[in-house]
Amino acid sequence: MVHALHEAVDELARAESFKGYGPYTGYEWLAAEIARHDFAPRGITLGTDEIFISDGGKSDSANLQELFARECVVARGGPDGSRVPGLRRRQRGGRPLGRRRSRRPLRRMVYLPCTAENDFQPALPERHVDLIYLCSPNNPTGAVATRVALQRWVDYARAHDARILFDAAYEAYIVDADVPHSIYEIEGARAVAIESRQERRLHGLRLAYTVVPKETRGRFADGSVSSLNALWHRRTAIKYQGPPYLIQKAGAAVFTPQGQKQVRALIEYYLENARLIADGLRAAGVAVYGGRNAPYIWLRAPAGVTSWDFFDALLTRAHVVGVPGSGFGPSGEGYFRLTAFGSREQTLQAVERIRAI
Amino acid sequence: MVHALHEAVDELARAESFKGYGPYTGYEWLAAEIARHDFAPRGITLGTDEIFISDGGKSDSANLQELFARECVVARGGPDGSRVPGLRRRQRGGRPLGRRRSRRPLRRMVYLPCTAENDFQPALPERHVDLIYLCSPNNPTGAVATRVALQRWVDYARAHDARILFDAAYEAYIVDADVPHSIYEIEGARAVAIESRQERRLHGLRLAYTVVPKETRGRFADGSVSSLNALWHRRTAIKYQGPPYLIQKAGAAVFTPQGQKQVRALIEYYLENARLIADGLRAAGVAVYGGRNAPYIWLRAPAGVTSWDFFDALLTRAHVVGVPGSGFGPSGEGYFRLTAFGSREQTLQAVERIRAI
Repeated sequence: MVHALHEAVDELARAESFKGYGPYTGYEWLAAEIARHDFAPRGITLGTDEIFISDGGKSDSANLQELFARECVVARGGPDGSRVPGLRRRQRGGRPLGRRRSRRPLRRMVYLPCTAENDFQPALPERHVDLIYLCSPNNPTGAVATRVALQRWVDYARAHDARILFDAAYEAYIVDADVPHSIYEIEGARAVAIESRQERRLHGLRLAYTVVPKETRGRFADGSVSSLNALWHRRTAIKYQGPPYLIQKAGAAVFTPQGQKQVRALIEYYLENARLIADGLRAAGVAVYGGRNAPYIWLRAPAGVTSWDFFDALLTRAHVVGVPGSGFGPSGEGYFRLTAFGSREQTLQAVERIRAI
Repeated sequence: MVHALHEAVDELARAESFKGYGPYTGYEWLAAEIARHDFAPRGITLGTDEIFISDGGKSDSANLQELFARECVVARGGPDGSRVPGLRRRQRGGRPLGRRRSRRPLRRMVYLPCTAENDFQPALPERHVDLIYLCSPNNPTGAVATRVALQRWVDYARAHDARILFDAAYEAYIVDADVPHSIYEIEGARAVAIESRQERRLHGLRLAYTVVPKETRGRFADGSVSSLNALWHRRTAIKYQGPPYLIQKAGAAVFTPQGQKQVRALIEYYLENARLIADGLRAAGVAVYGGRNAPYIWLRAPAGVTSWDFFDALLTRAHVVGVPGSGFGPSGEGYFRLTAFGSREQTLQAVERIRAI
């Protein structure tokens, strides 16, 4: 990957190979590699015009909301789902220089709690929803959606004319053979689901992509129907210019045999960290979740201890920093998130210190 | 710049200097360089927290609209101003999966025609407007706004509680000493104006920035007032993650003595192309505008010839491709845009061929 970046810089430096504006939706050669490596091996056929290359899962999930009416009812699983940027601000309503205040209702949220009691699997909503946000492997709980659970969501979406935004940012961490990597492994998903992924371990480089299948349609308020793929193409062409050429070259390098090997080694390194944390804390009697098929470890503070009390204890007594579960939403209270993204040495040290509390 | 990119790649490749997520609004060291080199020499003091580093002027101008109510009346100069992405789509209205259609009025546009008759200087609007979009040096006309003209706009904005979006993407092409490079050279502008620039000659790398001064305020529909700087910070934190580290390193390299020299040489090369085109066609009796302080040459087709007729004639008889002025809006009809971004050889050849028609 480093080699690919150096090559791309040299290419840009020469007049005859200089690259100016690229395609708004990213280069087709990268989309083709993504289709070939990330989807084809799982029996999923994607056209390059169904893959939108972008600068991050964060902007993708924020921007995708533009496709949907503010009146939509949105369901999200997880302790709360802080990974849907933009929703909070919209809920505040009110914009500067607005002479008339909008009377429209604000986007409504239906939270689907995920706790140890329901095995961190969000239940189907009891009321009608228009949009469903799912993240698997989950940040922060580390839980994964099973094939059966995903089929249930796709069936719900088809029955309720809802759409699913499937966040598979941590897909590369899946090791268990029966866990779906993509929602398109589920029958009927192409008609109702959009899937976003960040390019493995490239977050510092800002590269991600979103899949919008041609069959996924939206309905305008006047009843007319439109392809979400076409709308997203249009939105992208108007508001975005694609990631820099050399970043996309680095993205393609991930798919070379050498790149695959490097990325695999890195993922395995972090998965081993996750295992060490989960096993180490479990052996010490801590209730631990996740840490398998995901780089996140979700643990339960002792009974009666809040997430922030646990944060303080961990910080002052073990000198370990994590994220209080309550920061992710109401049903995260009493939980705590650790990540596997440290060095092996730091990870082992942190486990020892937490056990010693 | 090429050297800086190689250096940044190596830095990212080493664990001890690896960069993960950077600040949402870009690195402070780059903002400091921008303030020091692009503004301080013109007597403008900007805080680094007033400079938002982004991935392009296109996304900036599209996204900035989120700060303003849909009901805002927007004035834009130029033949039409195709450089305000996103407005058209908004005007279409209607979104999928919207159960109730919004009854709000759509954003209204006031076009301020720019033609040879008014020296390509948009007149103040006759009705009240909330937002004013100005681009100087202008794409496509190549016209620049004088100090007097900009003062008039700032005074209008202050009197009408309007805000100005000032697009200075081609600022680096200004050579005449009396042409303002920034709207903040104008008294009172900090309270009413937002300025966007793309980093010189880095468009293939996707790097730009927008200045939102702390004094620029917006008013919510309920009458309360808020800092646009604070709102834009908030929007950026929620929806964006900043350009990739190595792209920002390339941006900083532009400000080194070596980088400045390289960029200056390139700009002068294109300015000479612009001069050759403008002088060459003028000598052949063509009515030519722009081509000075700007990389764009705007020319008038012979009387009675439409922009598209001229396009066809140029293509078939001179094998030269340009952009029909009517594509930029109604008052662009009968005009045609050429750019200076070719090689010297191609440029001279094109001028010869057009003259031979």
